[in-house]
Amino acid sequence: MSLLDALQWRYATKRMTGEQLPQEKVDTILEAVRLAPTSNGLQPFTILQITDKQLLEKIKPIANNQPQIVEASHLLIFAAWEDVTAQRIDAVYDHIASERNLAPGAQKEYVDKLKARFAGYTPEFRAQWAARQTYIALGLAIAAAALEEVDAAPMEGFRNAELDQLLGLPQKRLRSYALMALGYRDAANDKYGQLKKVRRPKEELIIEL
Amino acid sequence: MSLLDALQWRYATKRMTGEQLPQEKVDTILEAVRLAPTSNGLQPFTILQITDKQLLEKIKPIANNQPQIVEASHLLIFAAWEDVTAQRIDAVYDHIASERNLAPGAQKEYVDKLKARFAGYTPEFRAQWAARQTYIALGLAIAAAALEEVDAAPMEGFRNAELDQLLGLPQKRLRSYALMALGYRDAANDKYGQLKKVRRPKEELIIEL
Repeated sequence: MSLLDALQWRYATKRMTGEQLPQEKVDTILEAVRLAPTSNGLQPFTILQITDKQLLEKIKPIANNQPQIVEASHLLIFAAWEDVTAQRIDAVYDHIASERNLAPGAQKEYVDKLKARFAGYTPEFRAQWAARQTYIALGLAIAAAALEEVDAAPMEGFRNAELDQLLGLPQKRLRSYALMALGYRDAANDKYGQLKKVRRPKEELIIEL
Repeated sequence: MSLLDALQWRYATKRMTGEQLPQEKVDTILEAVRLAPTSNGLQPFTILQITDKQLLEKIKPIANNQPQIVEASHLLIFAAWEDVTAQRIDAVYDHIASERNLAPGAQKEYVDKLKARFAGYTPEFRAQWAARQTYIALGLAIAAAALEEVDAAPMEGFRNAELDQLLGLPQKRLRSYALMALGYRDAANDKYGQLKKVRRPKEELIIEL
């Protein structure tokens, strides 16, 4: 299936059957997330993959009681770094140096400039920057799920701070921004599956210069 | 090519050959952008597609003189709504009502709640929310370009306010966040194409609960 056909096939699935997805399909989606390009290669996020039914039951009321939270096979939580620190930048570039067998100090000038740039931003800008990078990964997860014919419901409708507390994200210096329920659509009970897909028209969305 | 193979094939292309891409391939990428799901279906962004060489020459110094700006076939600019207004929400939902042949007022309760919710946010939150949605579309553009075997360089390294002025974005109530150069890699001159792709390891990026 082409990406465009897959994007036409998908929809924000509100009702799922509860059937389990093969972990292989979820792993493909997570690998697309992992390969997402991000500015300066920092990948400033962590994805939580939740299959524990008791935990999903606790998340449901925090997410407006949306049924797909517990009817999903897997729930992904997209959490961004709450801050971009020198320590985090070093960890990423130490890993790059090791993978590329770079000489010690080979990246020092670049990394120092990068740290200085981030140090010059406000904490709020850094958090928002990290959140935006996380949404690139969310976009790739949406593409990968559709191509795997896995139904997906990306969601922002939940109480972020409450979910963060439940999952211990403040201790990890992370903040949740989006959820993605993955599973199988319950076609008989999901009225949204029947609706015509509507998007803003191309003439309005794209300007040619 | 599978999405994962395509994501392995791609890299942030710094040098391009200047050759023109078939418009059909660019249109496929733009259609993936158009089909990007966004919260409440608002698609709070506009994409500018630039092929005018004189305009690209003006953009280059605003984008740290990165060579791919003028060596690209097409440059896409991802610009988000600077605010989410009642007027903009109405325009989207009027279009949805028309496409789905809804009775007048059928969406009124939902749309009123949506407007009230956004009115309760700070202007800064609304702008950041719109920017995050735009990065979902950026993620889908990255996937689509890779699957079309179109080289792409997503970029944040440019002076946003200056680019906005050049392109008249303040008058359109838009703000630029990311650029994407599209074209053909100049393999002989792009040292970045030879580097091992490094991403944070799965064990670190994904937490299973």
